Amino acid sequence: MQLSKIGEFGLIRSFRKSCAGIPPEILKGIGDDTAAIRISKNITLITTDMLLEGTHFNLSFATFYQLGYKTLAVNMSDIFAMGGEPRYFLIGLGIPKTYSSQDIDELYSGMTGLARKAGITIVGGDTCASRHGLVLSGTLIGETRKIIARSGAKSGDGIFVTDTLGDSAMGLMLLKKLGKKIPLKSQRAKGKRQIIPPLVKAGWGDFQMNNSQFTVHSVLPLLKRHLMPEPKPLEKTSTITSMIDISDGLLIDLSHICDESNVGARIYTNKIPISKALMKITKKLGMDPLKFALKGGEDYALLFTAPANIKTKAVRIGEIVRKGRFLIDATGRERPFEPEGYEHFK
Amino acid sequence: MQLSKIGEFGLIRSFRKSCAGIPPEILKGIGDDTAAIRISKNITLITTDMLLEGTHFNLSFATFYQLGYKTLAVNMSDIFAMGGEPRYFLIGLGIPKTYSSQDIDELYSGMTGLARKAGITIVGGDTCASRHGLVLSGTLIGETRKIIARSGAKSGDGIFVTDTLGDSAMGLMLLKKLGKKIPLKSQRAKGKRQIIPPLVKAGWGDFQMNNSQFTVHSVLPLLKRHLMPEPKPLEKTSTITSMIDISDGLLIDLSHICDESNVGARIYTNKIPISKALMKITKKLGMDPLKFALKGGEDYALLFTAPANIKTKAVRIGEIVRKGRFLIDATGRERPFEPEGYEHFK
Repeated sequence: MQLSKIGEFGLIRSFRKSCAGIPPEILKGIGDDTAAIRISKNITLITTDMLLEGTHFNLSFATFYQLGYKTLAVNMSDIFAMGGEPRYFLIGLGIPKTYSSQDIDELYSGMTGLARKAGITIVGGDTCASRHGLVLSGTLIGETRKIIARSGAKSGDGIFVTDTLGDSAMGLMLLKKLGKKIPLKSQRAKGKRQIIPPLVKAGWGDFQMNNSQFTVHSVLPLLKRHLMPEPKPLEKTSTITSMIDISDGLLIDLSHICDESNVGARIYTNKIPISKALMKITKKLGMDPLKFALKGGEDYALLFTAPANIKTKAVRIGEIVRKGRFLIDATGRERPFEPEGYEHFK
Repeated sequence: MQLSKIGEFGLIRSFRKSCAGIPPEILKGIGDDTAAIRISKNITLITTDMLLEGTHFNLSFATFYQLGYKTLAVNMSDIFAMGGEPRYFLIGLGIPKTYSSQDIDELYSGMTGLARKAGITIVGGDTCASRHGLVLSGTLIGETRKIIARSGAKSGDGIFVTDTLGDSAMGLMLLKKLGKKIPLKSQRAKGKRQIIPPLVKAGWGDFQMNNSQFTVHSVLPLLKRHLMPEPKPLEKTSTITSMIDISDGLLIDLSHICDESNVGARIYTNKIPISKALMKITKKLGMDPLKFALKGGEDYALLFTAPANIKTKAVRIGEIVRKGRFLIDATGRERPFEPEGYEHFK
C-alpha cells in the first residue's frame, strides 16, 4: 500500500498494535505526546544513535528488516557499554513518500523482533516524510545500579575485548562490492541451513573477487556481522574499571578510554581475536586482517579494562600503562598508534 | 572552519565545553556511551521529534540559530502537553559535509540559549555526516508527579487553548513567499527596537503581496511565531482532564483527544483566539483567518479540557460532548468537522 493512502496516523496506529504487551511501569506508550514511565532503579541511561541513508547504509544491499533491527542493535550496544540493561525504545523515522507501507512494516518487524528478544518495550517515536532519503533515529533508555564509564581505567589494568574484530568492516566491503541484498532475517531464528538455500536460489552461490573464487557460505558470518550485529552485555561487571563499545574501530575507541582516563595503552596485535572467516578471506585477497580489526569499525563488541587477572570469557589484548599508546607485534616490535578509524566529516 | 578540519570528535569536544554547569544528578553527560542520570521524581517523560530539511524547514529562510532553538522548543511543547517539566536533552545531528563549523556553532547556540533559559541540561547526542540535507533529531526527558494524557476528556468539560492560533502557518506562508532569512535571535533577549533596524538594513522594510503593501513590523509576530515558537507550561494542572499540544492543527489535535477519550466536541469558531496581526493581514489579502487557525499547524499552544467553570488565563473555545464533532459559527450554524490539517505522507 502507498504511504499516501495509509498516512502518518495510519502508520502509527498499525505500529502501536504491533507493540502489544506493555509492562505495568509504562503509564503511556505510543500514542500520546510523550512516553511516561515509572523508572524503578537508581540510574537511568539514555542514548541516541542515527542511521542515515548514504552515510550509514545503502538500500541496494540492506533490507528494511535489517535496518529496523540494526537501529535498535546499535543503541543496545551503547547501553551495554555503560553496564546497563536496555529497557525502553523510541524511534524517529523520516520516510520518503515513494516507499510502501510494506517496506515500513518490514522495518518495524526487524525492530520489534529484536526488542521482544531483548526484553525492550517500544514506547514512542516520531514519524514524518523525508525529502532526502531514509532517516532512522533511535533513542534507548536503560537502567543500571552502577555505571561503567570510559574514565576509570588505571595503569596495570588489562585491556579486554568480548568478540572478534574486523568482521563487520570486511562484511561491508563485500556488500559494497556485490551490491546485493542478503535475505537474512533473525540470525537466531533461522539457522545456516535455512539461510543458504534462498541465497543460492537468489544467485548467491559463488562469486569472484580479485581473481579469487568465493562461496556465500564462507563469507556469510562477515555479512551477518555487518547487517545484523548482536551486541551482548558483559556478564559480570563488578571489577570492570572502564568500558566502551567498539563502533568506530578499536584504535579510536581505545583512544577515547585513554583520553577520558588520562592513561596510555599497549596492545599486542597477535592477541586480537580474528575470526576464521576474516583470516581466510584476507589471506586469499592478500590483505592484512589487522587493518580491519584495528580500524574497521561497527564491531559492536565491548572493549573494557579490569585487573589483569580477572576470570572472563573476554580476550585480553593488552594493558593500560601510564603514558603512550603502542601496538606491539608478534616479534615484540613496538610502534605508536593514532586514533585512526571511522570519523565523520574526516 | 571546514567540518573536515575539526572532525566529528572536535565538534563534540567544542559542544561539550559550551554545555557547562551540569547539575549533580547527571552522573554522565556528553562524552560517554550514554547519559546517566539519577532521576528523582516519580514519573519520567520521554519524547522525540525530528526536523528534516525540505520537510520541516528550508535553509533559504531559516537560520542555523533558529533551527537549533526550534528543535528543542518543539520537544518542550510535548513535555508541557503531558503536564511535565522538561529537564534533559539529547541532540542527534546529521550534517552535510559542506557546512562550516560556524554554522554548527550557531545551531548549538540557539539550542543552548533556550536550554539555559528553560533550565534544561543537554546530556548527549549523536553527530554524523549526512549526504542528504540537514537532519535534526531531538530527544527530551521530563519529569512529573502526575501525567495529563489525551485520554481523560469527559462530556461536559470545556475545551481551552492557551494562545492565539494560525500565526505560525501564516508566518510560514510569508517566509515561503519572501524566501529570506530574518535575523532574529532570542525573542526575549532582544526587543522589537533591536530587531527592526537590522531587518530594515537588510532590505526588509516594506514588501508587496497580492497587490498589497506590507511592512515587516506588521508581520514580525507571525514570522517569529513560526521560526521561534515559545511553548509555555500550564500554570495549574490539578483539574485538567486531558491535554495535547497543537502541532498539526487544532482540528487534527482535538480529534486525537476525541479519539483517545472516546468523546465528541463542539467548537465555537468566533471564540478561537486570533492575533491582531493575523486578522489584519488576512483581511488585506482577502483570506479567512479561520483556515489558518483551524488547520494551520505548528502553533505549539496547549489544547486542554477541564471542568467548564475553572479559573484560567486560557481561552474557552468549546465543550466536550458525548458524540459528534462540530464547528459552530457566530450565527449558530453547525457543521461537522474532519481531522484536517498537517499529516505527513498525505
